[in-house]
Amino acid sequence: MRAGGNSNFEFLIVSMKTDSGIEGHSLGFAGRGANMAGAIAASALKPFFEGKDPLFREQLWQDFRTYDRWWNHVPIYSYGPFDICLWDIAGKLCGLPLYKLLGAYRDKIPVYASSFVLDTPDDYARQALEAKTQKWHAYKLHPLGRVDFDLAAYRACREAVGPDFKLMADPVAAYSYEDALRVGRELERLNYYWFEEPLPDTNFHGLRKLAAALDIPICGTEVLPGSHYSTAQCISESVVDIVRTDVSWKGGVTPVMKTAHLAESFGVHCEVHTAIYHALEIVNLHCCAAISNCEFLELLYPISDMNFGMKRAIDIDASGYAHPPEAPGIGVEWDWDFIENCTMKVL
Amino acid sequence: MRAGGNSNFEFLIVSMKTDSGIEGHSLGFAGRGANMAGAIAASALKPFFEGKDPLFREQLWQDFRTYDRWWNHVPIYSYGPFDICLWDIAGKLCGLPLYKLLGAYRDKIPVYASSFVLDTPDDYARQALEAKTQKWHAYKLHPLGRVDFDLAAYRACREAVGPDFKLMADPVAAYSYEDALRVGRELERLNYYWFEEPLPDTNFHGLRKLAAALDIPICGTEVLPGSHYSTAQCISESVVDIVRTDVSWKGGVTPVMKTAHLAESFGVHCEVHTAIYHALEIVNLHCCAAISNCEFLELLYPISDMNFGMKRAIDIDASGYAHPPEAPGIGVEWDWDFIENCTMKVL
Repeated sequence: MRAGGNSNFEFLIVSMKTDSGIEGHSLGFAGRGANMAGAIAASALKPFFEGKDPLFREQLWQDFRTYDRWWNHVPIYSYGPFDICLWDIAGKLCGLPLYKLLGAYRDKIPVYASSFVLDTPDDYARQALEAKTQKWHAYKLHPLGRVDFDLAAYRACREAVGPDFKLMADPVAAYSYEDALRVGRELERLNYYWFEEPLPDTNFHGLRKLAAALDIPICGTEVLPGSHYSTAQCISESVVDIVRTDVSWKGGVTPVMKTAHLAESFGVHCEVHTAIYHALEIVNLHCCAAISNCEFLELLYPISDMNFGMKRAIDIDASGYAHPPEAPGIGVEWDWDFIENCTMKVL
Repeated sequence: MRAGGNSNFEFLIVSMKTDSGIEGHSLGFAGRGANMAGAIAASALKPFFEGKDPLFREQLWQDFRTYDRWWNHVPIYSYGPFDICLWDIAGKLCGLPLYKLLGAYRDKIPVYASSFVLDTPDDYARQALEAKTQKWHAYKLHPLGRVDFDLAAYRACREAVGPDFKLMADPVAAYSYEDALRVGRELERLNYYWFEEPLPDTNFHGLRKLAAALDIPICGTEVLPGSHYSTAQCISESVVDIVRTDVSWKGGVTPVMKTAHLAESFGVHCEVHTAIYHALEIVNLHCCAAISNCEFLELLYPISDMNFGMKRAIDIDASGYAHPPEAPGIGVEWDWDFIENCTMKVL
């Protein structure tokens, strides 16, 4: 395992090697710093996985919950890279790309562009138009979180792209209930496609009221602790209309597929949330290709800063579809020279 | 595909062959007769699957729902053998037994003996004791469905096996709500482990009241149409405490795993229901080995009539654990001579 720090983003690389010599690798999110994330992973996760059979993915998931319960000090994003390594190993052992190992639903996914926080409403409008021009399938704003500014940005985007291009709003838990209701009504008038995390994911009371009051779908659960276990309650009590999952914050491929299966059982969409770094987005992409109830792959825009560590970028075609790699496992072609150069510590 | 009729039970054999020569096979339940089941499968399912990519299991599951929606004439048990063939092919392609392809949770499962309908309370008691003596992990009665007889049988079994051996009651939807409540209280006094389908699976109102009133877990959903989609509502509205699924009546490995994931998300047990024929029980067994929230493999007792068509019986050890085969795919060693001899029609 390595903690890397010379990229714009700190990161981990988690590697596993089996007795028979198969290697699985995953990038890992570094939270507030690679040293911190690496220390957690090295002290709590590495010793847990050493010597275990990598094909017992479900046993490892369940046992780790018990193992970590007493001290309960592991953030959920720490488990994901380890689970991804297990799936990478399984895919390589089987000679199948991850999405086919999972049971493919399709081989390409519509991509949407997901903004950073920008300076002016016009900056968002310009990006929305760019996304449309390059044939991506939708554009999502992360506005400032101040109602007046945000409404101006929502309106500017709609004006820029015309009445039909799909737009989504994600103010990242910034509003009060009252403001969220007012903004939601305006988003309905502007023909927005969904309204994401208007309130904190843990404000179950407010989100439930909002989901009942508004026609525009309320999308949430991406930072809710408890993976599919808490998402189950959010679905059954109609806290949100669309749920979120991803291979980083929810703990890997195993819980992402369970969340999708849970949501599908209720006829609910499970939209896969950006894992930020493209080496993780590729794992999301495999999951999207195996899930029927997910419409898009989300990519932060512009994408150029996020594809470090890989020799080959995510394959996005001229029609705005992302194609999962066909190589066995997760199919990331690692740029080991870059990774070596970034390595701060081997753990 | 073949419809077989010279065994005690009529059955189908569904076979698929890929371009590259890999063959997948599954036994199929024959409902009220192999000719009927075969005619359904040959007219509605075979043409749907021909020429499709067997690794696109999720796409096939979803597309078949749409394909069959207009006429809606396919009983759900028809899809299962086809889905099982897809998983058998994937396992053989990967060189992995099904339970490891799914992500193993364990490699052996406690078995319980599940009775046929017997003549007297003492007959049940004798069988319960047999199950205990041969170290199986529980015994489940399917009594007549008449309250007085059934209570006598429940008591006789408890007396025969002592206070602690696990016993379950399954009257197969025979009682009124009032009788079910009375019987349930007696089962609690007799330390029964669960109370299965006391009312029809579709009596949501009665089951919900019963599950709220009784401490003994109410177990159901095994014949509920709609696979994991209807089971989702039963869980979220507390219609039952424990849900049921199996690879035959719910449509294969794909929906069994989704049902288990759904139930696990809610902290609910998903007990895998007998598929009767052992060549299908082996597929159930693989699923049980990949599911954390299932306690037992159910086998109808005595088992001798159910293992036709296979050269090697289910591996049950002296401690009453069933072990999934380690051969690639579902790992059934088919007795093709027997199957040829039974073949009434090739479809």
